[in-house]
Amino acid sequence: MISFESDYNNGAHPQIIRRLSETNSETAPGYGADRFCESAKEKICRAIGKDNLQVEFLVGGTQTNAIVISTMLSDNEGVLSAKTGHINLHEGGAIEYTGHKVTELEQKNGKILIPELKKYLSDFFADENHEHMVAPGMVYISHPTEYGTLYTKEELTCISKICREYGISLFLDGARLGYGLLSRETDVSLKDIAELCDVFYIGGTKVGALCGEAVVFTRNNKPKHFLTSIKKRGALLAKGRLLGIQFDTLFTDNLYFEISKNAIDKAETLKELFRSRRFKFFIDSPTNQQFVILDNSVMKKLGEKVSFSYWEKYDENSTVVRFATSWATTDDDLKSLSEILDEVI
Amino acid sequence: MISFESDYNNGAHPQIIRRLSETNSETAPGYGADRFCESAKEKICRAIGKDNLQVEFLVGGTQTNAIVISTMLSDNEGVLSAKTGHINLHEGGAIEYTGHKVTELEQKNGKILIPELKKYLSDFFADENHEHMVAPGMVYISHPTEYGTLYTKEELTCISKICREYGISLFLDGARLGYGLLSRETDVSLKDIAELCDVFYIGGTKVGALCGEAVVFTRNNKPKHFLTSIKKRGALLAKGRLLGIQFDTLFTDNLYFEISKNAIDKAETLKELFRSRRFKFFIDSPTNQQFVILDNSVMKKLGEKVSFSYWEKYDENSTVVRFATSWATTDDDLKSLSEILDEVI
Amino acid sequence: MISFESDYNNGAHPQIIRRLSETNSETAPGYGADRFCESAKEKICRAIGKDNLQVEFLVGGTQTNAIVISTMLSDNEGVLSAKTGHINLHEGGAIEYTGHKVTELEQKNGKILIPELKKYLSDFFADENHEHMVAPGMVYISHPTEYGTLYTKEELTCISKICREYGISLFLDGARLGYGLLSRETDVSLKDIAELCDVFYIGGTKVGALCGEAVVFTRNNKPKHFLTSIKKRGALLAKGRLLGIQFDTLFTDNLYFEISKNAIDKAETLKELFRSRRFKFFIDSPTNQQFVILDNSVMKKLGEKVSFSYWEKYDENSTVVRFATSWATTDDDLKSLSEILDEVI
Amino acid sequence: MISFESDYNNGAHPQIIRRLSETNSETAPGYGADRFCESAKEKICRAIGKDNLQVEFLVGGTQTNAIVISTMLSDNEGVLSAKTGHINLHEGGAIEYTGHKVTELEQKNGKILIPELKKYLSDFFADENHEHMVAPGMVYISHPTEYGTLYTKEELTCISKICREYGISLFLDGARLGYGLLSRETDVSLKDIAELCDVFYIGGTKVGALCGEAVVFTRNNKPKHFLTSIKKRGALLAKGRLLGIQFDTLFTDNLYFEISKNAIDKAETLKELFRSRRFKFFIDSPTNQQFVILDNSVMKKLGEKVSFSYWEKYDENSTVVRFATSWATTDDDLKSLSEILDEVI
Repeated sequence: MISFESDYNNGAHPQIIRRLSETNSETAPGYGADRFCESAKEKICRAIGKDNLQVEFLVGGTQTNAIVISTMLSDNEGVLSAKTGHINLHEGGAIEYTGHKVTELEQKNGKILIPELKKYLSDFFADENHEHMVAPGMVYISHPTEYGTLYTKEELTCISKICREYGISLFLDGARLGYGLLSRETDVSLKDIAELCDVFYIGGTKVGALCGEAVVFTRNNKPKHFLTSIKKRGALLAKGRLLGIQFDTLFTDNLYFEISKNAIDKAETLKELFRSRRFKFFIDSPTNQQFVILDNSVMKKLGEKVSFSYWEKYDENSTVVRFATSWATTDDDLKSLSEILDEVI
Repeated sequence: MISFESDYNNGAHPQIIRRLSETNSETAPGYGADRFCESAKEKICRAIGKDNLQVEFLVGGTQTNAIVISTMLSDNEGVLSAKTGHINLHEGGAIEYTGHKVTELEQKNGKILIPELKKYLSDFFADENHEHMVAPGMVYISHPTEYGTLYTKEELTCISKICREYGISLFLDGARLGYGLLSRETDVSLKDIAELCDVFYIGGTKVGALCGEAVVFTRNNKPKHFLTSIKKRGALLAKGRLLGIQFDTLFTDNLYFEISKNAIDKAETLKELFRSRRFKFFIDSPTNQQFVILDNSVMKKLGEKVSFSYWEKYDENSTVVRFATSWATTDDDLKSLSEILDEVI
Repeated sequence: MISFESDYNNGAHPQIIRRLSETNSETAPGYGADRFCESAKEKICRAIGKDNLQVEFLVGGTQTNAIVISTMLSDNEGVLSAKTGHINLHEGGAIEYTGHKVTELEQKNGKILIPELKKYLSDFFADENHEHMVAPGMVYISHPTEYGTLYTKEELTCISKICREYGISLFLDGARLGYGLLSRETDVSLKDIAELCDVFYIGGTKVGALCGEAVVFTRNNKPKHFLTSIKKRGALLAKGRLLGIQFDTLFTDNLYFEISKNAIDKAETLKELFRSRRFKFFIDSPTNQQFVILDNSVMKKLGEKVSFSYWEKYDENSTVVRFATSWATTDDDLKSLSEILDEVI
Repeated sequence: MISFESDYNNGAHPQIIRRLSETNSETAPGYGADRFCESAKEKICRAIGKDNLQVEFLVGGTQTNAIVISTMLSDNEGVLSAKTGHINLHEGGAIEYTGHKVTELEQKNGKILIPELKKYLSDFFADENHEHMVAPGMVYISHPTEYGTLYTKEELTCISKICREYGISLFLDGARLGYGLLSRETDVSLKDIAELCDVFYIGGTKVGALCGEAVVFTRNNKPKHFLTSIKKRGALLAKGRLLGIQFDTLFTDNLYFEISKNAIDKAETLKELFRSRRFKFFIDSPTNQQFVILDNSVMKKLGEKVSFSYWEKYDENSTVVRFATSWATTDDDLKSLSEILDEVI
């Protein structure tokens, strides 16, 4: 069975396994004070091309979202998110568990609607009763979004400007950031993100690592005593080297970008496989997640030979499913898919 | 200046002040173990007309919502609410502070749309990923709603049935319950509510008391060690008698219902005052809150002589404002309003 | 049955009931924006004799402790308390519920041992691993303590100095503050407290009010958006006037101090009643709580005619019990007690 | 520099790295639903020698403590721990962050004093005011303790009995469990622990893994919806295989026990190195952590060639330091240490 189910169903990029093996017998201090973390942080800063960045490593995406949001918000504040945002729908209430509200904004294709954001903020501060309400303290976006879509540089700039006007933080969830940066249809660079956002993270789990997300604070705004806050949330890894080695490897010789490019190339081929066979897409995604509408009978047959994710019901007879490529997807995977598609139709 | 700004801008019903005075020199055990609380609980049960009810007194509405919700939900659960629900918009994130998510449902005139509720629940349990999501553990409604509207008995019955089908609790916020029960356009009785809901409260703060809400658990479902949970949330009143005496008074000789009726009678007269002068209503409210659309120039002039609440902008030239009557509104207040309206137009 | 069980078993001082009655028909804005709160705040500042104080009213003691502590601490911080501190033992975990640790310090007669405090702080900051530990962010003391004892001015000054040296807040729980200030054996004034502490509160619940505590921030250090933080914790009283009127009354014509003096005078007489009959005291308390050691047989007989509180087992044959006087204790109460003591021995 | 600083300063056991490499290209479902986790669970159950165990994998120790404690306690409950317990001192307040109190008990050499535990529980339930207090809902112990000491089977049995008598859970933190089980001075087996405790965990991070702890619920008492609770706490690893593969390897061919034995053998040799040179021990530890008292001058010279952990000041001239052996300690390490000791004295 070939797998397009998700971008975290493989192990790690072989180079990571190799480095884990090579460095294994070395002793290193715990809790992120090792030389691998240090080196990885430097390389990440170099890849971004900016100084004065503060980089910290955490284990997973939900954990990172909860820690960043809860340590950056004030007591009276909450976070604004697209209704479809990962923090709003798929994190089991992890943000609320920290005592902060996620306020939904209307969205389209996974992206916050900028006029909605503007309206929300201006209405909020115009409301005489707003001291009884949760103050907006942060805007959360993901890039790519849950639907694989991307903000344009203009959109990001605009959201960033709004946030600064109101004095609130802009946080970009980059769990799949590589796949966004390497999209053929983006004008947003890593440096742009570092300039426009107050904090963001570079996802490792879905882009070649066994685990790990690299959080970047862009304005010397890392919360004070951040290590204690991480510990308090049960997220401080004793062997921080595991994260350091992985990100050091990913940011050596451009690996992170190259493997991200592989996912995009494969996604474009996959798109073409479906498009040429007259399948319809639920959404036009320029990244590694592709949302295809399948007749239920086709879906059933296809599902016997290929794994993919159920997304949602489209209508009585058809269903939206997701095919995800990744750093690990091969030409052979796509060749097999092509053959199976021919069989199935 | 005559006041229609809210239903909690007066002191208490004079009978309550009298009883506080009469009982003042009596000593009584603390934390709700006094004879006044006991008597009040009995009278409330009698007013409801059901046995086996568990009644507890708390100080205020947001406090009650947070305590009821957080003690009744399991760790993996959240609460469903109309987008306009008080817990979702106007409690400063008090529910999220307890670690539980408030999930918004579409609404109309402050009421949950029943098909939306059904759809949400059936979609949730159909979703293969629902273990990554906050499980719906409770439906929160208010009656009257934020917009003064009321559920019909048929609607309440239907929501109750849905909740039982899915094994989740139905919680009715009755901060203004008296004004709902005495509405001329309701077919819902206090007993109906006790039969259809798992837990609800009878608001005192907005219906004649200085403070206080009476929570009623209808199925022997009061959370275990509830007193400790109240203490843990900083909500245990040392002199519980203050709540006991007030509710004992409100439920003696039908006082709660009579003063609620006064608010309704006055609201109907107020409605007529505006209607006969061709003012438009934003919503058709059968309770004590009336939402009138005022030309901005009229609003300004009126605001010099009458206090009311700003609600929201209607269009460039006009605004929605709220007039609230209460147990304390008098014929004189309405007569003055009538005269002022004539002046202002 | 005459009652010495606690200092919150009576209603309110009659003057408070009178003022509630007199002001009852007045309308007033909600949430503490009323003229009574304003007036009360001014009078409290005058009584303290300092400018630039920020005063806020809350409903009860545990609520106040939880709100002050959780809004003043940073994420990585906890609060230091005597092992016997109210927040450590008798608040159902209300502080921990806000996500902050209470760290116990050794105590004597309810008072923090100053050398212990010093040692704790110097050890903490000397520990290389202290980033893995909860940082001390506040010292909590109560005055009087749980055992009715008082800090001397020298002790308070010393604790205050230590706190400033380490940059942490000093918070004084004054649930029974009046009884401390009017003790015949204290050299600590209200002004001293305002100068030495960063925040403290003047208890109303146990000193003549139905409910209410007046929090005083002494260095323009009221947490930002404090009203929203109060709301978020379910503690914002809609009819804030209830607190304003009570504190306005207590701080008119010296009432708070006069009724506190009554409790002290009665406590001194009570002490004498026991002392002259050769009863032993568990502790030497200069305030309104007296801890007497009773033979179990005496305790039983006495308990039939007088109410008091069980404190702890002293030995096989005797028990420590607490007699509390209050603003409401009368000469007649003591005369009766004297007679009963004679009967019982 | 040879390292005895801690037992988590090395990479993983080489066999784990090998397995990660061998299985790397395999695809596997996320979130612990992979075949490696399943196999690891089976092998762990077999190693314990009991049926009906529920095993779950988490990433780190503090995380595991916080999740187990917060999902097993009721709202009104807290956890009892030795004053020196890891959860009480070195987890940055992670337990309190979940809203539950850690109550300190007196200890000796890191172990709860059983009479203290008994007294605490009997006093608590005798206290008439205990509804105002945090109820003891769980006893937390670690084995080995923070001081490397071990409970005897008799002690464990006794604590277990007390817990059952009071209906509270017994939770054993086994972050270093291997080193406890393989101690030459223990009579406690893995099966004993499974029989006496309600929940415990088998530490991976400090016993050969890169990360990972295996939680074992022994009475079908895994909290409902545990996966959602893990997600809610940001602790659900997307690539659960990382934990599955490691524990599968550790529990294949007895590896976990063999490498634990290595640490013990090396610790015994290390003890002898110091003992034969007349060094004094701070505590008599039968496991892999050895606490030696060093003259400050010796400490300084030794510290230039060997890394160890500062523990605490012993007196003006000497200091307690910790030497930890591990699965990775070699004969060569000890030979070097021996030579360095000779140089230094």
